[in-house]
Amino acid sequence: MSQALVVGLDLGGTKIAGALVSHDGRILSRSRTATPAVRGAEAVLDAAAALAAQLASSAPTGSTLLGIGLGAAGTIDPVTASVVAATDTLPGWAGTQLREELTRALTTGAHALPSSLWATGSPGIEAVNDVHAHALGEAWLGAAAGAPSTLLVAFGTGVGGSFLTEGRPLTGAHHVAGHLGHLPSVQAAGLPCSCGAHSHLEAIASGPAVASAYARRGGNPGLDTPAVFALAAAGDPLATEVVRTAALAAGEAMAGLANAFDPHVLLVSGGLSEAGRLWWEPMLVAYREHTLSSLRATSPVAATLGGDAATLGAASLLLHRARH
Amino acid sequence: MSQALVVGLDLGGTKIAGALVSHDGRILSRSRTATPAVRGAEAVLDAAAALAAQLASSAPTGSTLLGIGLGAAGTIDPVTASVVAATDTLPGWAGTQLREELTRALTTGAHALPSSLWATGSPGIEAVNDVHAHALGEAWLGAAAGAPSTLLVAFGTGVGGSFLTEGRPLTGAHHVAGHLGHLPSVQAAGLPCSCGAHSHLEAIASGPAVASAYARRGGNPGLDTPAVFALAAAGDPLATEVVRTAALAAGEAMAGLANAFDPHVLLVSGGLSEAGRLWWEPMLVAYREHTLSSLRATSPVAATLGGDAATLGAASLLLHRARH
Repeated sequence: MSQALVVGLDLGGTKIAGALVSHDGRILSRSRTATPAVRGAEAVLDAAAALAAQLASSAPTGSTLLGIGLGAAGTIDPVTASVVAATDTLPGWAGTQLREELTRALTTGAHALPSSLWATGSPGIEAVNDVHAHALGEAWLGAAAGAPSTLLVAFGTGVGGSFLTEGRPLTGAHHVAGHLGHLPSVQAAGLPCSCGAHSHLEAIASGPAVASAYARRGGNPGLDTPAVFALAAAGDPLATEVVRTAALAAGEAMAGLANAFDPHVLLVSGGLSEAGRLWWEPMLVAYREHTLSSLRATSPVAATLGGDAATLGAASLLLHRARH
Repeated sequence: MSQALVVGLDLGGTKIAGALVSHDGRILSRSRTATPAVRGAEAVLDAAAALAAQLASSAPTGSTLLGIGLGAAGTIDPVTASVVAATDTLPGWAGTQLREELTRALTTGAHALPSSLWATGSPGIEAVNDVHAHALGEAWLGAAAGAPSTLLVAFGTGVGGSFLTEGRPLTGAHHVAGHLGHLPSVQAAGLPCSCGAHSHLEAIASGPAVASAYARRGGNPGLDTPAVFALAAAGDPLATEVVRTAALAAGEAMAGLANAFDPHVLLVSGGLSEAGRLWWEPMLVAYREHTLSSLRATSPVAATLGGDAATLGAASLLLHRARH
């Protein structure tokens, strides 16, 4: 029998990454493009459809294409595959009907492909928030493969996460579940958060929060977060303290989340988690201090699939459809 | 056909409450006894078996008894119905095999009943942590009836909770899930927690934390929490401030948990939640301030079944067995 293939897309505020993925998780080809965010939702969808069409067209002769799985920025309703809410990163993104509009683009629209290419005559389209896609990828083929439940916490431009049980992300009553960055953080007391409130985890433990804290505490306000990490690695006391505070906040929150969810695998990803021991050591100290005794032997682990996690997870939406 | 009945027990550190429950959730009789905690696990089990036998014996002639559902203090493995861990409230409780020992007591032991009483010749025994039982009861017949997912947060002697999806409690990899009192709380910064760590929600938002805060901030150290609430109701500024801080911590945490779990129903229970507007008003202010915009229209609601919630939820373990 011909092999079943899916296009997985990871659609974020700055780039759209795509992969042609086999039913057993092999990546046959990858492609990416910049997200034309400033040109609005229609342009973003057009870019996504173009990338999907390019990847679908690269499928080996005789293979069966099931459709497009999409991990997209914003609050996504996975049942209707639509964007419920989005931030200013993607103007006009809220309200976008991803299934409807991608189907149109790929069947009768600008990036139409022959219907014979698709197993069912037209592409299946499934979508989920990009952090959930990331977790689905890691739970399929990465650090959480085979785990009955997984909690992913991502420390990057924002702080977010995804809780998976039996291979399915908890998306919640309003598709909001996984917004872990808006839990209280002692380290963030009084600091304004991106959501408009204050004292939340994201206000101290995200990437941008590290540069902000460095400037707020008297450091050079022109430095970005990688530069602050570089200074910390070189022994600068203020940079070290700022990174340490972000890591303590992360560890305290992850301990609290472990106490609350008790996942089989607690996964960490995002830019800060890739910054090495300067972040991991204080994070683990705080994690161990704040977990209940029954969890003291547990430890957060690093995600392993990097940039492929979300495209693989998005692809899995069609490949593991029965589970969703 | 004869009606199917179950004995539901709520086994806590101070009392054991029991009810004879019909398959459709009617309570045919109730009974309760003090928990002989200081006399050890064997005495506690004997008291539970005696109460179960008394209730089972009160079943109307011709009814079918399925067994005993138990909501028990401690960390409970619901598969083996055993106590994984427990606090000093119940000395020797950890390691107790609830299914095995209750079966023995009710079949060949001190509280043996005729095998003809049981539908299958011997009692089915299921157990879960008491807070999970509480949530199961509310999700069956109380404030969360019919909800696809429920998060219960209980503010009482401790702070705990339970997350239910599709009628099942999330118990986690180590049966620890639901320990919501050990999330970071800005209001608790630096305060010691019952778990040995510090700065956790339980250290400021539990019942005992209110009396402690009142004493710590210069109030009469001889007052208990109801007395502090009474003073607050009478307008005492320090008592009012102490109650308000506990309520703010509760609201901030519940907002963070709503952002993380996005439950269909967010339920509040426990002694503090029964203290009226002195607690509810600041709690709701904090909740609304800290929830994401997509959740601003949501609101925590009060549990409605009171002391029956846990016995009904425990009974449901056998009645809704297929779902567990």
